[in-house]
Amino acid sequence: MSFSPLINELITALKCLPGVGAKSAQRMAFALLERNRDGAMTLSKVLHDAMEHVSHCEHCRTFTEARLCKICENPMRSETGQLCIVESPQDVLAVEQTSEYKGKYFVLMGHLSPIDGIGPAEIGLTELVQLLDRESIQEVILATNPTVEGEATAHYIGQICREKQIKATRIAHGVPVGGELEYIDGNTISHAFAGRRPV
Amino acid sequence: MSFSPLINELITALKCLPGVGAKSAQRMAFALLERNRDGAMTLSKVLHDAMEHVSHCEHCRTFTEARLCKICENPMRSETGQLCIVESPQDVLAVEQTSEYKGKYFVLMGHLSPIDGIGPAEIGLTELVQLLDRESIQEVILATNPTVEGEATAHYIGQICREKQIKATRIAHGVPVGGELEYIDGNTISHAFAGRRPV
Repeated sequence: MSFSPLINELITALKCLPGVGAKSAQRMAFALLERNRDGAMTLSKVLHDAMEHVSHCEHCRTFTEARLCKICENPMRSETGQLCIVESPQDVLAVEQTSEYKGKYFVLMGHLSPIDGIGPAEIGLTELVQLLDRESIQEVILATNPTVEGEATAHYIGQICREKQIKATRIAHGVPVGGELEYIDGNTISHAFAGRRPV
Repeated sequence: MSFSPLINELITALKCLPGVGAKSAQRMAFALLERNRDGAMTLSKVLHDAMEHVSHCEHCRTFTEARLCKICENPMRSETGQLCIVESPQDVLAVEQTSEYKGKYFVLMGHLSPIDGIGPAEIGLTELVQLLDRESIQEVILATNPTVEGEATAHYIGQICREKQIKATRIAHGVPVGGELEYIDGNTISHAFAGRRPV
């Protein structure tokens, strides 16, 4: 025995959300039915609108429902001549939170991963090359994640920049601020020592 | 800075789900946008349909999109003359999983909780009294949760049954099967001793 067909359908549909299994989906379905039908109706509408209208920014490839995202639209952002390469839209938000970087972004929407069939074309490097040819970029800041794939992606883009004689820099790896040395892994400490600077 | 307006709206709407905070909502929004737009479209449609069509069974008050739920529709279920009172539709599923109970259900959709303004009318006791008058019920099985509110609710319904001279029973409280005595709380063990039976 199970619930009525429509409730079962709802529970199955909720399982498409990441981190939501059978039990959580059931709890969510009943919570919405019992206490928050208005919220569920809003969610239904916004989900539909977002999936239909959100696409990629024509310049930087981040998610937006407009032709250009807010950052690419802002002419002040081109003045520094800097271009920060990140893996995801969430990474743009993380960098923006510092309020220190004033340049533009290019969002790869992933990283090189040949084993999953993700090559240079899939992460928009064709568009990146066009962008580097078209705009006057003085510095490319490689802010991909410090993982094996992120490093490989940074290395690959670094080579493209070298061919075009554009300065490419990689963000520093080291001990995070507020971290305690004894809990930091050896690899990070090696990076921190290799990247030491005179005080 | 934040994401584009529609993406922000989606993140806010996802927070209506129980157990989903700002960070999970953001993760869900991007996972759907990046990898599962079809799933999200289905979810949007099913959410809308469920909120619009799912209502309460006219007999037992459980959630269903039909006039009567599958159990109330089944004439075999009236034969035993038993009526099991539970707090929620999920409790019906839990009892059904045993495949031992063959009677009907009445779902309170909550429990008595005067402090939250939930009195007898809110948990459908008016309908329950009508049902007890209308149908030939031989036994009411009180399967509300063993919490303070659940016990109070069971006690209240027990009194109604006594007035109508219908036999009312309460499910046994004791040590769960597979449990280990040393990890069981004292209250449960007291119940287990009080409810001991000759072997």
